[in-house]
Amino acid sequence: MTSDATPGRDGTFPALPLAGMRVLELSSFVAAPLGGMTLAQLGADVVRVDPIGGAPDHTRWPLAPSGTSLYWAGLNKGKRSITVDLRSGEGKKLVTRLVTESGPDGGIVLTNAVGRTWLEYEALVKHRPDLVHVRVEGHYDGTPAVDYTVNAAVGFPMVTGPEGHADPVNHVLPAWDIACGLYAALGILSADRRRRITGQGQRMTVALYDVALAMAGNLGFLAEAQVNRVVRKRLGNYLYGGFARDFATSDGGRVMVCALTARHWADLLRVTGMRDVVAALEQSLGVDFGSEDDRFEYREVLAGLLSRWFARHDLAQVRAELAGSSLLWSVYNTFTDLVGDDLIARNPMIDVIDQPGVGRHLAPGIPLALGQGPRASGLRAPVLGEHTVEVLTGTLGLSGGDVSELVRKGVVGPLPTAEELASASASTS
Amino acid sequence: MTSDATPGRDGTFPALPLAGMRVLELSSFVAAPLGGMTLAQLGADVVRVDPIGGAPDHTRWPLAPSGTSLYWAGLNKGKRSITVDLRSGEGKKLVTRLVTESGPDGGIVLTNAVGRTWLEYEALVKHRPDLVHVRVEGHYDGTPAVDYTVNAAVGFPMVTGPEGHADPVNHVLPAWDIACGLYAALGILSADRRRRITGQGQRMTVALYDVALAMAGNLGFLAEAQVNRVVRKRLGNYLYGGFARDFATSDGGRVMVCALTARHWADLLRVTGMRDVVAALEQSLGVDFGSEDDRFEYREVLAGLLSRWFARHDLAQVRAELAGSSLLWSVYNTFTDLVGDDLIARNPMIDVIDQPGVGRHLAPGIPLALGQGPRASGLRAPVLGEHTVEVLTGTLGLSGGDVSELVRKGVVGPLPTAEELASASASTS
Repeated sequence: MTSDATPGRDGTFPALPLAGMRVLELSSFVAAPLGGMTLAQLGADVVRVDPIGGAPDHTRWPLAPSGTSLYWAGLNKGKRSITVDLRSGEGKKLVTRLVTESGPDGGIVLTNAVGRTWLEYEALVKHRPDLVHVRVEGHYDGTPAVDYTVNAAVGFPMVTGPEGHADPVNHVLPAWDIACGLYAALGILSADRRRRITGQGQRMTVALYDVALAMAGNLGFLAEAQVNRVVRKRLGNYLYGGFARDFATSDGGRVMVCALTARHWADLLRVTGMRDVVAALEQSLGVDFGSEDDRFEYREVLAGLLSRWFARHDLAQVRAELAGSSLLWSVYNTFTDLVGDDLIARNPMIDVIDQPGVGRHLAPGIPLALGQGPRASGLRAPVLGEHTVEVLTGTLGLSGGDVSELVRKGVVGPLPTAEELASASASTS
Repeated sequence: MTSDATPGRDGTFPALPLAGMRVLELSSFVAAPLGGMTLAQLGADVVRVDPIGGAPDHTRWPLAPSGTSLYWAGLNKGKRSITVDLRSGEGKKLVTRLVTESGPDGGIVLTNAVGRTWLEYEALVKHRPDLVHVRVEGHYDGTPAVDYTVNAAVGFPMVTGPEGHADPVNHVLPAWDIACGLYAALGILSADRRRRITGQGQRMTVALYDVALAMAGNLGFLAEAQVNRVVRKRLGNYLYGGFARDFATSDGGRVMVCALTARHWADLLRVTGMRDVVAALEQSLGVDFGSEDDRFEYREVLAGLLSRWFARHDLAQVRAELAGSSLLWSVYNTFTDLVGDDLIARNPMIDVIDQPGVGRHLAPGIPLALGQGPRASGLRAPVLGEHTVEVLTGTLGLSGGDVSELVRKGVVGPLPTAEELASASASTS
């Protein structure tokens, strides 16, 4: 089970791009765990070190009927797990050794742990001068923040949601955590490159708030406010600066339709039979709906006309008509629709994995497809402490007896039972 | 101007982690340009090759009063720009040479261009066997998609937005484009590492839809639907599985408040003076609001009680009280609030840059802070075609006369005028 779940470090998948890289992760929640998982999915050996009993994210909702966190299982696939008493001197020494004695391709730490000075760059670099240390934090000054507070702070909830809605609309998707975790992984890979060339280590930090602020700037929202002095308003489901919107079908379905180019627009008019009506409107208004600017300006008029066609056709008819066009469109799905869709099960990124405590279910690999060489497929999350013995014997050269003694003293957590490791494959197909 | 705007390749910032790496980008819109910009911000020499006159994103809204796209300026900082007639045989040959003759740290292509077979991995690898080629696409089968259609397809609009709202709520933030671009950059760095070790090139693709589907899986949404057979409902601005919500202040302000731990919760009760009321409620209901599960279960009752305190205090009072607590919280800002905030201007990630066509304005660098060595600061976007001469003479060894001849024949685009390159610093402070 172990070697199936953790290819890369044992030579099973020698062609994975990060084969050989060794990362120690002390993390919780989304950003840092996603960063570590991404490296593991690319072939790195990522060992997640947790306090005995698990970090606070180990029981985060949603939970499977067994109580196993589906969230934790999703964000820690492909890692190895060891639990350590992070408050004891011996535990700290053990983790420090896992950093320093992890070979030339190791010495890489990814963490969002707070208040553990012995885990900071300054402390660890004394033992390993070429240390690569990437810390995920809330704000650049070290004060905490979470996706919800950062999102409120940078302005997106004030432009998201139905037109005319007065109150902020939060994201359910933790978009900033996701971007932050990917930046953390980028930090590790770029520091690894520099170390490979110069021999020098690197300390980096990535703040969740800065990720959000950077994107508000990168996408032009800050400059629009500062340079143009424009206060962006809510546009509901309209696209800003072009023509795209959702439409309701006669049977209660919903589709998102994007007419971004002149060709898309011509196709949308053809499909909906609105060519002549819109041409007459263009002439009488003296505008050109072949231009994105004019389509955006008159979006409500155009949507009002087009929506009548959608309201007269059911979802199956709408699908058939749109499929024959150049338009970019999609039906709105629920997560339940998605997991019932054959297309998902056939997606080469999707595997059926058998996760202890969860059972067989659809789980994604990394959305980077490698054109040559094998794929890291079927990676599941570890059970807490699953790799304690192999990490301590493999990396530090301890004997089985040494490990038992550490377990007995409570320096490392108990090894999972056979029951905890057993498949729960009864549950789902 | 050029050397200020493009450190890394000229030795100005030798310590940037990706110094020396050379990437050719043929891209448009958000994902691929963000991926390239991220590499440039880490020190790589990223040359964006555009068709003469620019790709479709070059005029994307929002626009500065001059007509310069704030969006394009935000997503292409730190790159060099050259424009080429990508339909002419000579233009194709020139771009191919820029890939193949870019030295051992070059031969890296990042693209989302469609329908240019000569730019595909199969074509270019014939000229450069160790090619690293990362393609951003819509779906894994090559069919197109955009952030809005992908978001509709994977389920998030059905759980985002006000409780009880019937219709889907789109994201304004193109979260999938962002994650997709960062994955593309990760693909390049991991392939570069593998090439450095093995000498072998790598072809990778990253599909926007797969990025979204992967995150729906990673975060447990797919497993919740498949394993638990739960259809997640809209929760408005509540956090799922814990206690967090927005509250209105007496003066129309709005704050997001997160009580994720028992300590946060105790602090929230103390600040709002609700300790006794909530204790009585706990006793009579037989629940424990020290537990996240119970706080989530009774979130509406608790929010109803707590909101009364917020409604009696103005934003300044609320800020003062929350600042003295352990709580995670933030005021909801608009983008306009943000750019007027001293805290932003003091953030070390934020620079004032002078962008031709825009003028001096606040612009973010990369949210990865390097603990040692210099920062790539003050990077602005190029003017279209700004680096045509230096790229063609520097990389391909052409003479000034050769370049003039290529411009005359229309194989490369016209060089920008002094006026196009001039600062527009009159506009903003």
